[in-house]
Amino acid sequence: MEGMTSPGQVWAHVGQPFQAAEFDVVVVGAGRMGAALALFLRRLAPHLSLLMVEEGGLPNEEGATILAPGLWTTLDLPRQAQWSQQDQWSEQAQWTREQLASAFGEMPFEPCPLIELYASPLPGHDHSPQGGQPSAAVPYESSAELAREFPVLRELANLDALPLARVDRQAALYRPASVALNAAQQAVRLGANLLLNTRARLKHAPGPQVMLERLTVTNTHQIVTHEVKVVRARHIVVAAGAGGPPLLEHGLGVHTQHGRAYQQYPRLNLPSPPGTPAVRVSGLTLRPQHGAFTLIPRLHHRDPHGYQPTGGHLTGVPTGLRREVLEDLVNLMDALPALAGPHLQVGRSLSDLPGAWVTLVRGDPQAPPVWETPAPGHHLLLGGPHADTLGLAVAHDLAQHLSQPLAPMP
Amino acid sequence: MEGMTSPGQVWAHVGQPFQAAEFDVVVVGAGRMGAALALFLRRLAPHLSLLMVEEGGLPNEEGATILAPGLWTTLDLPRQAQWSQQDQWSEQAQWTREQLASAFGEMPFEPCPLIELYASPLPGHDHSPQGGQPSAAVPYESSAELAREFPVLRELANLDALPLARVDRQAALYRPASVALNAAQQAVRLGANLLLNTRARLKHAPGPQVMLERLTVTNTHQIVTHEVKVVRARHIVVAAGAGGPPLLEHGLGVHTQHGRAYQQYPRLNLPSPPGTPAVRVSGLTLRPQHGAFTLIPRLHHRDPHGYQPTGGHLTGVPTGLRREVLEDLVNLMDALPALAGPHLQVGRSLSDLPGAWVTLVRGDPQAPPVWETPAPGHHLLLGGPHADTLGLAVAHDLAQHLSQPLAPMP
Repeated sequence: MEGMTSPGQVWAHVGQPFQAAEFDVVVVGAGRMGAALALFLRRLAPHLSLLMVEEGGLPNEEGATILAPGLWTTLDLPRQAQWSQQDQWSEQAQWTREQLASAFGEMPFEPCPLIELYASPLPGHDHSPQGGQPSAAVPYESSAELAREFPVLRELANLDALPLARVDRQAALYRPASVALNAAQQAVRLGANLLLNTRARLKHAPGPQVMLERLTVTNTHQIVTHEVKVVRARHIVVAAGAGGPPLLEHGLGVHTQHGRAYQQYPRLNLPSPPGTPAVRVSGLTLRPQHGAFTLIPRLHHRDPHGYQPTGGHLTGVPTGLRREVLEDLVNLMDALPALAGPHLQVGRSLSDLPGAWVTLVRGDPQAPPVWETPAPGHHLLLGGPHADTLGLAVAHDLAQHLSQPLAPMP
Repeated sequence: MEGMTSPGQVWAHVGQPFQAAEFDVVVVGAGRMGAALALFLRRLAPHLSLLMVEEGGLPNEEGATILAPGLWTTLDLPRQAQWSQQDQWSEQAQWTREQLASAFGEMPFEPCPLIELYASPLPGHDHSPQGGQPSAAVPYESSAELAREFPVLRELANLDALPLARVDRQAALYRPASVALNAAQQAVRLGANLLLNTRARLKHAPGPQVMLERLTVTNTHQIVTHEVKVVRARHIVVAAGAGGPPLLEHGLGVHTQHGRAYQQYPRLNLPSPPGTPAVRVSGLTLRPQHGAFTLIPRLHHRDPHGYQPTGGHLTGVPTGLRREVLEDLVNLMDALPALAGPHLQVGRSLSDLPGAWVTLVRGDPQAPPVWETPAPGHHLLLGGPHADTLGLAVAHDLAQHLSQPLAPMP
C-alpha cells in the first residue's frame, strides 16, 4: 500500500472528500434506481448523510441500466392483474413519467407511440373497440387502419396475420443511463458522497456495515483491490440490479428468492426515421434507436442458477443470439417478415451482441419493481423488466420510507 | 481395426446376427418408449424388418428411463385442458395402465394411491366433494379425514396448512426400466434386431440412412468408435429422449423447438412401509421407493440451451441439489415439515444426486408425449413428464401409423 495518497483524496471522486466512517444511508449501486433513490433522499431528507458506492463508472457500462430499452408504457400494466394493485401501478407509472420528463434536467425524453399487434384478441380481453373494460385496458383497433398513420407497420409486419392492434399513445422513449447520470450528479450537488470504481461487500456485524474495496487496474490489466475501508451505516440500500440478491446472500447469509435472466438486444437494420413508433408482437419489442431498431426479446422465465450465456445456431451457423430467443424470432418471421431478411444482426458469438443480466423479482418476468428489507437495516431495491415504467416510483417510495425519523444507530 | 471379429458376430448382441444393410424400420433408442414401439411393431406388422439401436446398455443407465418415477396417475390430466383432448388422453392413460399391468410379463406393478394436498382449491376447480365437474375432475376431500386411512400424511405434512386433498386411487407404481427391458426382450424374441453400445447418427442422404458407430472402451477408459456401418431404412424413429431433438438437428439440419430440463431426484429417508401412498404438494411428489421416499421435484420450465447443471447452496453449504429445486423445497418446509429435518438428502455435489435430462415437448412441462415427422421418413417420439401415464399409448399410435402399408423405398 506504499505510495498511496490519502484516503479522502483518492476515494471521493465526485463530491467533497469525506473522512467519515459512518453514514445514515449507504446506497450500493448507482444505476438509475440507486441514483434516483439518492437524489430523492437528498431532497426529502437533506439532514441524512448519504454515500453512493458504484463498482463501475457512471453510468456503469456493464450493468443493465445502459442497455435497458428506456420505453415507458402502460400497455402491459393490465397483465399484472395478479398483483391486484392495478390502480396503484397506474398512478405510479404516471408519476414516473412526469419525473422522467422534467425532474432530471436536460435529458432526451421523446413521446413515441407503442403499437402492439395481435393475431387475435388476448384471452380475457374485450374484443370491441368500445368494450366495457376497466379504464386501464386499451381498446383494439384495426392494424390496417393504423398503418395509414404509421406506414412503417407495413414494412415490418404482415398485417393480414396481425389484424388487431392496441396503441399506447402516451408511451415515450428515454435513456435510463442518462437518468442514472443526471440523478447521481444532482444528488452529489445536493451533498451526497459518491465513490466510483469501488466494490461493496456487506458485513456480518452488529449493525449494518459495508466493506468498501477501492479497485484499480494494474499494468497487466488485472482489476485488483487497492484499499479497503469499512463504513457503518444506519441503512444500507442494495440497488445493484441482478447483482443485488447475490450481494446480500454472500454478505449476510440471507436467502432471497429473486432470479435473473440474460437479456440480449439484437439490432434490426431497417430505417426508423423520426416519428417511427415502437412495435410489439408476442412480447418482442422493436424500439426505434439510432435510426434503426433495437429488438427487446420477450423474457419467458428466469435462467437457472449457474447458467452461462451461450450462443445458438441458425441452420447450422453459430450465432451470438441465444437459442431461446432465436426460436422466438424464427416463430415470428411469418408475422414480422422484416426479421427474416439480412437486416437482423444475430452476431457470430456472444460478444457480438449487447447483453446484460436483468433482475427478475421473485423470478417472475411480470413482477413490478419492488423494495424490501431482507435483514434489519438492509434494503433491497429491484427493478426488472418494468423498471422503465415504474422504477422511479418504487425508488421514491423507499426514499420516503428512509426519510422517516430513523431509529437510533444500533 | 486389426483383430476385429466379423461384423455380424460383433454387432448382433441380442437376436440373430444380421448382415442386412436395409431395414423397414430403425428405432434409435431403446428406452421404454422406443422398446415399446419396437414390440408393438413386431406384433402389428411382423412382416416389417426392424432394427433397434441403443447407445448404452439395456436399460441405459444414463437415460431418463431408469430414473423416471414410474407413477401412473390421471390426477394431473385435467391440467392439460389446453390440449383440448381431455377425453382422448383419459382413454390413452387407461390403455397404458392395462399394458403396464399385463403386457410386459413379470414386472412390478403395484397400485398405490396418489394423494395431492392443497392449501386452498385450485383456481377454476369446484370446491365441494359433490361438485358438478366433468368426469375427469377428482373431488376434494378433507385431508384430516384421509389421514385416518393414511396416517403417514400426518408424519409428512402439516395438515392444518393443507386441509384439502384429492386422491387418485387408481394410481400405480412401476419401473420404467423394467418396461424397457421386457419390451425389448419380447421384441427380439419376435424377430427384432438389437444393437447395444452403438451410437446412431442420422445422415443427409437420398432416403433415410443411419450411420451406426459401434462403441468400445479402450484400456485407458476412453469410449471410441470401433467400427462404422451405414444402414438404409424406410423409416427411422428417434426415441432417444432428451437426446432425440439434437440428434435430428445435427444429422438433418432440421430445427425442432423441443426443450429439456435437468431433473434431480433427491431422497427423503423416512420409512415408507408397504401401503404408503404417494403424496404430492405444489407439484412436488413424494414417491415411496425402497422403503423410503424419492422426491420428484416440479419442473417449472425448460433449461436454456447450454445450461450445465450446477449445485446450489443451503445457508452457505454447497449442495448437489440445484438452487431452483432447493428454493421450492424451502418454500414447502412449512407445509411439509418432513423436508426440514435431517432426512432430506441434498448431497454435497451434483454427482451425489441421481439426475437426468427430461425432454419437454415444445419446451412445455405440461405437454403430453407426442410423435411427429420432422423430415420425410424420420419420426421423433418424445415422452417427457407425462410419459409414465401416456407414453405407451403414444408409442402404440406411432406403431400403428408405421404398420400401415408403406410407400416404396425412396
